[in-house]
Amino acid sequence: MTLPLDTLEKSVNQKLLLLLKDSRSIEGKLLGFDEYMNLVLDDVEETKGETKRRLGKIILRGSNVVSISLI
Amino acid sequence: MTLPLDTLEKSVNQKLLLLLKDSRSIEGKLLGFDEYMNLVLDDVEETKGETKRRLGKIILRGSNVVSISLI
Amino acid sequence: MTLPLDTLEKSVNQKLLLLLKDSRSIEGKLLGFDEYMNLVLDDVEETKGETKRRLGKIILRGSNVVSISLI
Amino acid sequence: MTLPLDTLEKSVNQKLLLLLKDSRSIEGKLLGFDEYMNLVLDDVEETKGETKRRLGKIILRGSNVVSISLI
Amino acid sequence: MTLPLDTLEKSVNQKLLLLLKDSRSIEGKLLGFDEYMNLVLDDVEETKGETKRRLGKIILRGSNVVSISLI
Amino acid sequence: MTLPLDTLEKSVNQKLLLLLKDSRSIEGKLLGFDEYMNLVLDDVEETKGETKRRLGKIILRGSNVVSISLI
Amino acid sequence: MTLPLDTLEKSVNQKLLLLLKDSRSIEGKLLGFDEYMNLVLDDVEETKGETKRRLGKIILRGSNVVSISLI
Repeated sequence: MTLPLDTLEKSVNQKLLLLLKDSRSIEGKLLGFDEYMNLVLDDVEETKGETKRRLGKIILRGSNVVSISLI
Repeated sequence: MTLPLDTLEKSVNQKLLLLLKDSRSIEGKLLGFDEYMNLVLDDVEETKGETKRRLGKIILRGSNVVSISLI
Repeated sequence: MTLPLDTLEKSVNQKLLLLLKDSRSIEGKLLGFDEYMNLVLDDVEETKGETKRRLGKIILRGSNVVSISLI
Repeated sequence: MTLPLDTLEKSVNQKLLLLLKDSRSIEGKLLGFDEYMNLVLDDVEETKGETKRRLGKIILRGSNVVSISLI
Repeated sequence: MTLPLDTLEKSVNQKLLLLLKDSRSIEGKLLGFDEYMNLVLDDVEETKGETKRRLGKIILRGSNVVSISLI
Repeated sequence: MTLPLDTLEKSVNQKLLLLLKDSRSIEGKLLGFDEYMNLVLDDVEETKGETKRRLGKIILRGSNVVSISLI
Repeated sequence: MTLPLDTLEKSVNQKLLLLLKDSRSIEGKLLGFDEYMNLVLDDVEETKGETKRRLGKIILRGSNVVSISLI
């Protein structure tokens, strides 16, 4: 069985695509996380509808995350 | 009595259809899960209204899931 | 006094009508449940407005349930 | 001081009027409850806007309840 | 320092005005409460927009309360 | 490091401006608080859009608070 | 691995850009935080649509935060 947090641990330093509850999507390199799935991401690009913007390094609260794709 | 997590355990490596709170549906093969019903899924296809897209391997937070159908 | 979980236990293998927060209703045979009122249901028929569809066997997260009628 | 759960305990076998978060109201005889204010009700009549329907015996999740009137 | 629950304790048998999340307001005499700020109120009058109605004795779940005014 | 609850403790007897989730704002003197950031405020003035009203002494549930400004 | 709270600790006395659930954004210097990601910020400027206003020193409840950018 593949546990969610193990999958996340194997994804450190890799690029992820996150979908948030407010329907924004976030692309960035995973630097780390905690047991609440709060995430630290670098080289972040946020997409909201047609608009993209670069956010650099962010902390993202896990409670806002819907899904995390490994890209 | 059939416990929800036991049912999920028997579904590992099988295809599931998930309905999310934001009304998206997700189809994919279950790789694993934890006690919060966070799921790891592979070969994922997301359906939102008429639009489908392939998402590959994803981690899905359990708090966004409404129902899980065994298909 | 009739406890909610005892009432549920007596309903195993019986047909239930569930009303969900997203206003869908779900009819199906109860196979089991846990202390969070996550449910396993079989022979499920979902009703959303005028549309019905069969879902087979599902796991339903308790946090989405408003009420459970014993029918 | 009158504790909420004590008030509920004295109301077993009595008729209650419940207002839910989704603005439905529920009238029925209280059969029992647990510490989360999950309720078991019998002879239930649900009112939604102008529409009434009989639901028989139901389990109602406490997290959906706004207020409980003793009628 | 004046603690919230101490303030509530001093308000037993006094009239309160409560504002709820669903924007109803509730006026009534406080009979008691628990540590979740679930309240028992008597002689309750509910106001919703322009409409008032008398509700008698109610149990109000604390999670629906925004603010409690001492009147 | 300045902890949130320490900052609040230093603000007792001072005037605060609170922004709530329902977009009301509340101005008042802080009398006390608990670890959930439930607050007791005095001399309260509520602002909702263009409308102001005086509320006297209130208990405000912390879960409705977005931000607290020290004014 | 870079933990979210460690990243926040290294950001004390630095400027942050926060995005809140109600879609306001907040820019300010981080003075401190607790384990719930409640934050104390100084020299705060709030942006809501096209409108900016200065808020001085604020306590921000973590549950309203979506993301924290290090700028």
